[in-house]
Formats: sequence, C-alpha cells, structure tokens
Amino acid sequence: MSTLRLGIIMNGVTGRMGRNQHLARSIAAIRADGGIVAGSVVIWPDPVLVGRDIGRLQRLADEFGIERVSTDLDSCLGDDSYQVYFDAQTTLRREPGVMAAIAAHKDVYCEKPVATSSAAALELSRLAVEAGAHNGVVQDKLFLPGLRKLGDVLGSGQLGRVLSVGVEFGYWVFDDAAGAGQRPSWNYRADEGGGIVLDMFCHFRYLFDHLLGAARSLVCTKARLLPSRVDERGQRYDATADDAAYALVELVDGAIATLHASWCVRPYRDDLLVIKVDGTGGSAVADLRRCRVQPSAATPCFTWNPDVPQDIDPRQGWVEVPDRGHYTNAFRYQWELFLRHVAFDEPFQWDLRDGARGVQFAELALQSFSERRWVEVPDLP
Amino acid sequence: MSTLRLGIIMNGVTGRMGRNQHLARSIAAIRADGGIVAGSVVIWPDPVLVGRDIGRLQRLADEFGIERVSTDLDSCLGDDSYQVYFDAQTTLRREPGVMAAIAAHKDVYCEKPVATSSAAALELSRLAVEAGAHNGVVQDKLFLPGLRKLGDVLGSGQLGRVLSVGVEFGYWVFDDAAGAGQRPSWNYRADEGGGIVLDMFCHFRYLFDHLLGAARSLVCTKARLLPSRVDERGQRYDATADDAAYALVELVDGAIATLHASWCVRPYRDDLLVIKVDGTGGSAVADLRRCRVQPSAATPCFTWNPDVPQDIDPRQGWVEVPDRGHYTNAFRYQWELFLRHVAFDEPFQWDLRDGARGVQFAELALQSFSERRWVEVPDLP
Amino acid sequence: MSTLRLGIIMNGVTGRMGRNQHLARSIAAIRADGGIVAGSVVIWPDPVLVGRDIGRLQRLADEFGIERVSTDLDSCLGDDSYQVYFDAQTTLRREPGVMAAIAAHKDVYCEKPVATSSAAALELSRLAVEAGAHNGVVQDKLFLPGLRKLGDVLGSGQLGRVLSVGVEFGYWVFDDAAGAGQRPSWNYRADEGGGIVLDMFCHFRYLFDHLLGAARSLVCTKARLLPSRVDERGQRYDATADDAAYALVELVDGAIATLHASWCVRPYRDDLLVIKVDGTGGSAVADLRRCRVQPSAATPCFTWNPDVPQDIDPRQGWVEVPDRGHYTNAFRYQWELFLRHVAFDEPFQWDLRDGARGVQFAELALQSFSERRWVEVPDLP
Amino acid sequence: MSTLRLGIIMNGVTGRMGRNQHLARSIAAIRADGGIVAGSVVIWPDPVLVGRDIGRLQRLADEFGIERVSTDLDSCLGDDSYQVYFDAQTTLRREPGVMAAIAAHKDVYCEKPVATSSAAALELSRLAVEAGAHNGVVQDKLFLPGLRKLGDVLGSGQLGRVLSVGVEFGYWVFDDAAGAGQRPSWNYRADEGGGIVLDMFCHFRYLFDHLLGAARSLVCTKARLLPSRVDERGQRYDATADDAAYALVELVDGAIATLHASWCVRPYRDDLLVIKVDGTGGSAVADLRRCRVQPSAATPCFTWNPDVPQDIDPRQGWVEVPDRGHYTNAFRYQWELFLRHVAFDEPFQWDLRDGARGVQFAELALQSFSERRWVEVPDLP
Repeated sequence: MSTLRLGIIMNGVTGRMGRNQHLARSIAAIRADGGIVAGSVVIWPDPVLVGRDIGRLQRLADEFGIERVSTDLDSCLGDDSYQVYFDAQTTLRREPGVMAAIAAHKDVYCEKPVATSSAAALELSRLAVEAGAHNGVVQDKLFLPGLRKLGDVLGSGQLGRVLSVGVEFGYWVFDDAAGAGQRPSWNYRADEGGGIVLDMFCHFRYLFDHLLGAARSLVCTKARLLPSRVDERGQRYDATADDAAYALVELVDGAIATLHASWCVRPYRDDLLVIKVDGTGGSAVADLRRCRVQPSAATPCFTWNPDVPQDIDPRQGWVEVPDRGHYTNAFRYQWELFLRHVAFDEPFQWDLRDGARGVQFAELALQSFSERRWVEVPDLP
Repeated sequence: MSTLRLGIIMNGVTGRMGRNQHLARSIAAIRADGGIVAGSVVIWPDPVLVGRDIGRLQRLADEFGIERVSTDLDSCLGDDSYQVYFDAQTTLRREPGVMAAIAAHKDVYCEKPVATSSAAALELSRLAVEAGAHNGVVQDKLFLPGLRKLGDVLGSGQLGRVLSVGVEFGYWVFDDAAGAGQRPSWNYRADEGGGIVLDMFCHFRYLFDHLLGAARSLVCTKARLLPSRVDERGQRYDATADDAAYALVELVDGAIATLHASWCVRPYRDDLLVIKVDGTGGSAVADLRRCRVQPSAATPCFTWNPDVPQDIDPRQGWVEVPDRGHYTNAFRYQWELFLRHVAFDEPFQWDLRDGARGVQFAELALQSFSERRWVEVPDLP
Repeated sequence: MSTLRLGIIMNGVTGRMGRNQHLARSIAAIRADGGIVAGSVVIWPDPVLVGRDIGRLQRLADEFGIERVSTDLDSCLGDDSYQVYFDAQTTLRREPGVMAAIAAHKDVYCEKPVATSSAAALELSRLAVEAGAHNGVVQDKLFLPGLRKLGDVLGSGQLGRVLSVGVEFGYWVFDDAAGAGQRPSWNYRADEGGGIVLDMFCHFRYLFDHLLGAARSLVCTKARLLPSRVDERGQRYDATADDAAYALVELVDGAIATLHASWCVRPYRDDLLVIKVDGTGGSAVADLRRCRVQPSAATPCFTWNPDVPQDIDPRQGWVEVPDRGHYTNAFRYQWELFLRHVAFDEPFQWDLRDGARGVQFAELALQSFSERRWVEVPDLP
Repeated sequence: MSTLRLGIIMNGVTGRMGRNQHLARSIAAIRADGGIVAGSVVIWPDPVLVGRDIGRLQRLADEFGIERVSTDLDSCLGDDSYQVYFDAQTTLRREPGVMAAIAAHKDVYCEKPVATSSAAALELSRLAVEAGAHNGVVQDKLFLPGLRKLGDVLGSGQLGRVLSVGVEFGYWVFDDAAGAGQRPSWNYRADEGGGIVLDMFCHFRYLFDHLLGAARSLVCTKARLLPSRVDERGQRYDATADDAAYALVELVDGAIATLHASWCVRPYRDDLLVIKVDGTGGSAVADLRRCRVQPSAATPCFTWNPDVPQDIDPRQGWVEVPDRGHYTNAFRYQWELFLRHVAFDEPFQWDLRDGARGVQFAELALQSFSERRWVEVPDLP
C-alpha cells in the first residue's frame, strides 16, 4: 500500500462544533483508524490547526496527536505542503478565509453557511471554479444514518410518487442557565448571526436538493418566542434572533412539504429531527438513526369514530429499515468523500455552489417573511 | 319530575353522519336513557324524521323507535308541535332549509358548513336573531374527550404563555374501493362541495376561537394529490377537490399554529387528530380521547449528538390527563347543551354567527391559496 | 489564568463525616479537578489537617495529597497564610474552636449544629459579624440533587399555593453490631450530644427557611424506642438518646408540614429521605437524587371503593424531573459556594446566624416535647 | 335446615352510602346468596325500607327485591315482626332514631358517628344496655381485606413490640365539579356536620382500640385548605369545614402513631388508605386490600450516601401476605357478625359504647386543636 499525505489547514476548530465533529470525530478518528483506505492507497490527513490562541491550539493538538499548530494563517496558506483549506470559523470570518485560500491555490472545504449572502457565496464558488479548486461544503445531515436509510428507501422507488413531506426539528433550549449548556448564546443574538432561519434553512435546502426533491416555492414565518435567555457566564440577556420558524414548500414535482424548526418546543416524537415522507406506494419516517416504512400494502383502513378508543394504533404497522453495516459519524463520512474527491477526483456534489443554494434558501425564507407572501425559488445565476 | 317534550324536525339523517352521530348516538341514545334530566325537569326529544325516501325513513324510525316520518318538510314546518329544526343535509341544501325553518319560527340547529358562503351564513344568523330563534351549529370536535381535557389544561393556566400550536389531522383514504367505505365520494368532487379545506377549516376556526386562541392571519396551500378515486358503486371517477391542505396561522397573542389536513397521509402519531400546544409552563398533546402533558419541570435537557442513540426518549416524560367521569359522545354532548339552551335559555356560544366564522375561515384559506399570500382574519361584519 | 490560593485549617476531618464528605469528596476532589474555575481565576484550596493524632492525620494527608498536618491548632490560627478555619469536630468542641478562629481573624465554615445552644450559636454569629469574618454553616441537604430539583419546581411556581408538606427521614439502624457500622454510637447517648432531634431538626430548619417556606409554630414528640445498642467495640450499651421524633409544623403561609425522623423504621418509600409537597397546581415528591411531579391536570379522580382493587395506581401519573447537567456532591457544592464567597464576596445565605436558627429549632422541638404543647417559632434576637 | 327470619327496619338507605354499602352489597347480597348459614340455621334478613320519599323507596325495593317500604317509622317500630333497627340517616337525625328504636325494644345497629357528642352517644349506649338490646356500630375499615391481614400479622406477634404506626388517608377531592362526583358537598360544610376530623377520627379510634393498640394522648391540627368547592348542582360554595387533619398519638404501650388525613393531597403511595406498623420483629404495610411485611431478618442495612443512587430499593424486601379465602365486602362482613350476635348471642365487640369512643376521639382532637396542646384520652365514664 502506498500512502498519500494530504495536508489540511484546519481553521476554527477551537469552537465546539469544529473541535468535536471535525477534529475529534472526523480527522483525528480517521488518523486513529490508520487513514482512509482507497484501493491500494491510504489517504493520510495531516492537519495544521490554525487559530488565534496558541495555548488552546496546542492543547487540542496534544489531545489529538496533531503535529503542527499556528496562529499565522498567511504563512500556512503559503506553505505548499498543505493542499486543503478547511474553515469552521464563525460565518462572518468565513468569506475572507475561503477567498484567501482560493487565491493561494488551495482546495477548500468549509462549514455552512458558506457566506453571509448568496451573492457572496456564489462569488466564492465562481472563484473556486476559475481557480480549478476542489471545493465542498459540509452538509452533515445528509449523512446521518437515519437519513441515509431514508435516501435508500426513496431511491428504491418503493414510496411511489411523493405526495407530502414533513420535517420537524427542534427541542426545548432552556432560557435559564441550562440553555447555555445546550447551545451557544450567539445563536439567539441577531447581531452575531444567530437565528434559526439562518441556521436551519441551509440544511433544509440540501435535504430538498439531494434527498426529498427540489423546492419550487416557499412561504415562511418566524418568531422570537422567548424574549431573554442566560449566557455562558450566567448573565441574562435579551434574545434578539428568531427561535422558531415554520414554512410551507411546494416541490417541483407537486408534493407539499412542511418545515417546523423551533428551540421552544417539547418534542413528542421519536427524535430531535424527524422527516416523514408520504407517497403513493408507501410512507417513511426517518430520525437521526432510524427509518421506518409503511408500505401501501400495510396501510390501515381507518374510519373516524371518536366514540371508542382507536383500535388501531397508528404507530403499529411500520417496519424498521435495518442497519446495513456500520454507520460512521456523518461529518467524518462527508470528510472521507471530500478527501477522496481531492485525491482521486471522485465525484462530489456538495460544492460551494451547492452551499450558495443553502444561503439563498435562508434569504428567500426571510424575504417571504418580510413580504408575507410565497416566493419562488429561482435558479442560481 | 315533570316532562318537557321538545319536537324536533330532523332533516337529512339518512346520510351516514346524520344517522350515526345525530340520530343513533345522540337523539335515540338520549331517549334510551330516559331523556335529559335537568333539575326537576326531563327534556324529552320527540323527532320527526324528514327526507325524500319514505322507505329509508321508515326503516330508520323502526330501528330507533321514532314515531313519525315525513317527506313533506313544509307541513312539518307548519306544525306547531315541533319547535326545533335540525339540518344535516348536504351543504347546498342547508341554506334554504334553515331559512324556511326560521321563517316558520322554529329554533334551528344544523351541521357545518352552515352555508356555501360566509355572507349567506351571516344572513342566516341575522334572520335567526331577528326572529328571536335559538340557533346553533354543530362543533363536535370541541367536545371530544381529548379536546375537553386539553381545554381543561389550557384553562388551568398550567401551560403558561402559549408559544406554538400544531394541529395534525388525517389518514389514508384509499383511492380504490376501500376508500368509498371510509368516506363518501362527494368529498372528493369540487362541484358537489367536496374538498378538505371546506370540510376542515370550519372545524379549525372554532378550535381557535374556543380552545387555542383567536387567529389573526393565515397562509394556506392545498393540493389534489390523488387524481382519481372509486365511488360507492365501484366506479372510478376523477377527483376534482383538494385532498390535502396546509396552513400557517398567526394567533392574536403572538403564537404560531401549523395546520396539516390530509386524506393522503399514513399517520405515525397517536390518533387521527392530534393537537399539540407548547407553552412557557409546559406542553400538551391531545388526541381524540387522551391528553398528555409535560410540565416545564419535566422538560428534558437535550443536546444534539447524532453519534449515539438518543438516550432520552422524547415520548417519555409525559403524563396522561386522567378521565374525569364518563365522556359521552361529542355530538350528543352538544345536542344536550342545545336542547337545554332551547328549553331553559341556558347559554350556548356555538350559534349561527359562530358557524359563519367557520365558513369565513375556509374562504380566507382559499383566498390565501389563490393570492399566494398571507391574509388577515377580519371581524365579521 | 491566575491562581488564588486559599489556605484552609481543617479541624476534625479524622471522623467519618469530616473525612468522607469534607476532605475526600469536597476539598480533595476540588484539587483533583484543578481547583475552582471562576472566570479567569482558579481558586486553589490548600488545607492543613489539624487534629490530635498525628499518625491518623499523616495517613489522611498521604492518601489525599495534602502537604501539611498539625496537632497545634493555635499555631495554625496564628499563621497568616491560612485564611479559612473549618470545624467538623464534635459539637461540644466546636464552639471554642470557632471562637478562637474568629479571634484570630479567620473566615469560618463549620458543621452543624453550630453550638450546643442557640444563644451560643448567636454569640458566634455576632462575633463573626463584628470581626468582619466571612462565615458559613454546612447545610448539605439543600444541595442534594433531588432537593435542588424540588427547589427548581417550587421556584417555578408550578405547584401553585403550597397546602401541605411531608418530610420522612429514617431507616433501620440495627441495635446489634450491624448498627455500629451504620452510625456512631455517640448518636444514641444523650450525654454525648446524641439524639435524633438535635441531629435532624437543624436540617429541618434550613429546609423550611430555604426551600419549603418559613415555620410559624410546631409541636413535637420524641421517643427512645430501642433501649440498648452495640457500640463500635461490640459492647452493648444503654441507649439514652431519642431515636425517633415526630412533629407537626404550621408554616407562615398556612400550609401544614409533618416531620417524621426515625432510626427505628423500615422504609417503604423511594429513599432514606423523602419530601412531598402538595399544592393547588400540583404535587412533587423528592428524594435524595430524584424529584417527581404530578401537575393538577394529571391528578386522578379517585372514588372510595374498597370492594375492588383500585384501578388507578396512585404511583402512576407522576413524571420525573430530568437531570439538568451533572450534580456534584452536595457538600462539595456548598464548599465551592463558600470559597467563592470568601474569594469574591459572592452572596452566601447559609451563615452562622442561619446555623443558630437550626439550633433554635431543635431547642423549640425539645421545649414543645417537655411542655406538651405547640410552641411558636420566634425571630432570632 | 331451619330458617330464622330477622326483620330489619332499614332507615336512611336512600343515601349513597346506605344504598351501596348497606343495602346493595350487604343485605341484598346476603339475600341473593340465600341468607347467612350458621350451622343448621339460615338467618334470613327481611328488611323494610324506611324514609321520606315513597317513590325512591319503592324504586330501591324493586331494584333489590325487597317486599316492604314505609314512610311511617313509628308504625314500623311498633311492628313486632321487626326485631332490628338500622340507622344510616345523617348524623343529626341518628340520635332520636336510635333512641326511639331502643324505647320500642328493638336491637339497634347504626352508622357512625353514633351521635353528635360522646355524651349523647354514651346515653344511647346506657339506654340500650338497660333495655337489654343487642347493639352495634358500623366499623367497616376493620374488615377491609388489607386491614384484616394486618390484624392477622399483628395477632401473630411476628412484628414484636410495636414501635411506631403511620396512618395515611386521603386523596385529591377536586374543588371543581369533579369533586361533587367524588364526595357530597355537605362534607365540606361545617354547619351540616362536615369536616374530616368528624368523619375520620371515629374510624381512627376503633383502629387503635381493635387493631393498633390503645391511644393514651394526642395532639391534632386541622385546616381548611381549599376555600371553595362546587356542589352537586354545579354551584360554587364556600367550604367551611376542615379538609385536612394531622395528629400525633402516643399509644399506651409507648409506641407513637402519626395520623394524616386530607382531601387535598395527591397520593404517592399504594392506596387511598395505607397503615404502616414498625416493630422490633418486623414491619407491615397495609392498604385496602393488601398487606406487605418485612421481617427483621430481611431488613436492609442502609448507610447514608447521597453521592450515588441508592443501590437498595427500599420497596424491595417486602413480601405480600397472601389472600386467605375470599374477602367479602367489609360492611357485609360486619352485618353478618351483627346478625349472628342478634340471633345467637355470639360475641360482638363493636357496640354503641365503642361508637361513643369514636365520637370522643373526634372531640378530643378538636379540643387539642383549640387548646394547642396534647390531651389525654380518658376512660369513658
């Protein structure tokens, strides 16, 4: 076996998401497993951790056995031994970071949202294409075990024509000190890029484009339901960003989707994210790790009779899609796809242009909210 | 004890709904129990069954021990021994029937929708008020055991400020012969007054007005998802009416409601109708017969970690609202309220004007659909 | 990060309670975790262990990595590098120990009961206030996970007006050799300060003041139910102190509390300590680690019918308050609060005056017992 | 077999308790089973139902196959074919009823409380003894299956010396319309003889005298916790009687008992009434139908360690006392004992003097409450 080293500049992995998902469970986990075996080649990711606090970087590097850290992004970008630039900084810093990396002839991979506007995101995509850079955007939910199972079910055609889709996301994020342990406080501050529309509609877009069917138009409303929360230091602050959003979406093929996203909801469902698809041939319900189907042959024939307890439990008559092999972490799964794309030019659909579509979808949702009407989902320019 | 006989002209009880809910489970059941005991008075409902097919009427009368049937509505309306007119005809026939009854100085009670337009429904209300007629409209879902429990919970204030409401209604109505046994085919024909918006949004309106909080504005979409169905004689026909509808609703107090109604959905929930309310003090989930609550003290502190199976089952941590006494059929319950209203002038909120609000809500939903925008819910003129 | 060393004279940690709760699970555990992180400062507790047996002290120090031990309290009190004096000696030795520490300008923290009389305890409080000493008393039960959850529930107002409170404490302390392994024999000797009233009513007082509502008056009875026991050396001795006590308490807000404490009881309940609160809005049952609530909406409607097995299990219909985060040891939790109080003047309610209230409550219980009447709970002078 | 007819004047069985427990489940049930077989004799109870409403009496008689009804008590008392007078009227009417029956040389059996004062009850007892009348008072709880099992356990001596007793009675009686279905509204009106002390302390007295050990002294407090309720006609009224009471009781043999009775409590225990007895040889917990014991050999050795979940569940280690034969209704059981007492002079301990003790105990509880002190339980004069 030959080893192909891939140098990766990892920028912004001192934050919780970057640390846990991208470093610990993806790059460090790949290294702990000996790299990515691809035929006779082993891809060996070799990161340099870049950030502002050298102490924190060094502790991270020590913890995960990473050799290099740096607070000097420019010199890292100038170093030819690093081919890939990864960005998990806050949204406001991402655009200049990615732009500099493209200018330095790096391949780029980054968290969502790609940029603060779809125009800016598209410009990054254009620059990357012009530079011939491999490029990708994190779309982790696509690679959750439950959604991969749902993808298999949809791909098999067993559900027939899709009629309706329901996406329910959310849980109760406490507005006292417990909430600070659940999610960072900037998520609830509009001036720091918080808000559930900006956070979730990027995800929703790729779920439509790659799993559920393309969206044609949408109408969205949002609200800031809880007026104040408690931050990481125990201080109460005014919550200024939306913490719940609801949308209706018409799909290109005529189906209708409903999107519910809320941090002010006590879930009475199987998991924190549940997607349901009803089709002419059957229905499926996916959560983070499971997927259940009810084929048309098993559909109960209900009649409305409120006088007596329903003798059919609607939750019976569903059959679980079994695990097929081991499901790795969704972030790691996409990392492996991206690194194979970089190494061998294997196809990779989830590029910066796709990321721009996510930003566009959030923009359209906000436009729909402010104009109080349906808006079309146009092609990207 | 003294007995107060109330003569009731029951028009349109040869249909399934009229027969099962209004005759068998309401009027005949009340008679089987000896009438309605109200203090020292027993109200004794004494119906005449009116319709077009004397044979069917007579068979119904025999089955339920009713003394009189008639195919001559006018002579019944002219008979002073009948004080109440009840109408469960198809919507198109209801308006002239109710109007004639008011003109004949009857008290009137009728199924929903009251009329084919809110203007017509309001005119009926106006005529009834002018005539001094007691009047009422069936709003059965309010009196389902599960929704009565939900009403108790909301009334107690335990949920705090209501943040969001979710209403999910529907089940799979087969588009083959099985479907004809579930629901009549006219429900799927636009030219016969079918369609899920006309059917369900009347119900949704009174749920808002009397249970969930008043609606301020809404946006609605609808679809005819299954193109053809099979009728009662086994013939396939083109389905022309909408069989699924989805709406977002802003409530006056700032909460947001989502409405899902579909006959093309395989439910993966507790029952055919489920209403969820999330509030600052707790949440509740009601179905036809049950209601579960999760007080804020029992709210789990979820964190997003898709790597491992969720160790908290979100369906745990809910406690069921117990039955308090015996719950009679919802239709019968409202019949008893109406007959006491007629007999003793007890208060009765669910009058023709209230029924007009239901028709208005369906009209607004259709307007929103055709104009593709949010519409306000104005006061009735 | 800067480190703030706090020198602590720990007097009396060779006893079981001192060793296990204050040294092993509090101070040593804090040190093992790197100190108390408070913003950018780390509080580093640096104890000297003081006692009479140098050998036992040195063994303890070795076990927990403590640098200094001493049998000379006076010289420790004279050492300016120790700011805090902690006393877990037997009750009779506590008063002179704390008094000397205050005279030596130390901050003081001590076990309960603070002193042998409320007058003496108040005098200690007065001296500490005059000296400007930070001061505190251990009130560990307040910080048990189950009681913290109960405090959250009560604080949320969900229980409405509190109607009644039931406190049940106790378990079977064997009167043969097994009992010596459960509790020290001095607990059962009146002349050594034993007795369940002196032991438990200090705890009960702070539960009222800080959790359940202030007490207005009480009536108490007590008994010495088992006449002899076996001591640590296997010798049978006459038990002279009360081993069971029962009280009724009227709260300021009109609720009634019952207190049961017994070492002669075989518990048939969830845990060794159970507190139940019934209110107009719901009820809660807390034990050491758990808390369950029954909101008023879930209250079953029982009717008395002894002919048939109760078809409602009264233990159903309760929902558990979930863990919110990790619960540290109750003693350690309060230690951290006290050390932050010393370091940063953060608020700390559980001071020597509060400890005097606990001693007062035990005195009032004994007075009620001897006078066989209700006694009022007066304000402290 | 010979048949011994016993004529019984049943006065006051149109009320709920009289009808259900004394007529339906006792006398009518005995008759349905062919009478009471006692050796070669069958005792055949032959009642006349006496009251004020002849219609209600006749309907009751028809329902239960009783031959005679009457509204003329005097003529019934003058009829020698009726040997027994039974009184289940309201308390205020009981005293004159029983007195007239004794004067008419009847044997008497009656509900509790026997009279409105212990002096009056004693006078009834004196009159009955002078007249040589068999006499008895209902003490149904003694004959509940669970309490009979507890009686067997205590009688066996297995619990050793009794150390403490806990009696917990009560459940939530709703203060809205649901409460009227649970209990009659007069229970909550002081001027109609309501109140939980008057209702329950009669029961508690005979539990002490016949089951748990004689009481030497008590202290009691009571409260009216819920200020208003809803009556049988749906009207809200001021609740003026105590709805919760708590007492401490010293038993003659040195044990201590606690009594909790409340209609404002949400039970988290096995049943609506639970009695626990701890003794040197073991403990027992009885409810309406079950009894569990923990012999001393099975007593767990708990140690206090709040850091970890208790690894012994205190509800384990108890073993259920099995049913021994079929347990008839408690009221019927005592009826059979009384009728055998009348027929054959078999012993019967639960006489009018015993009933006077019950009234005395309630009086002492009220005295203790008003004088805020312990009161002794003196011998009856």
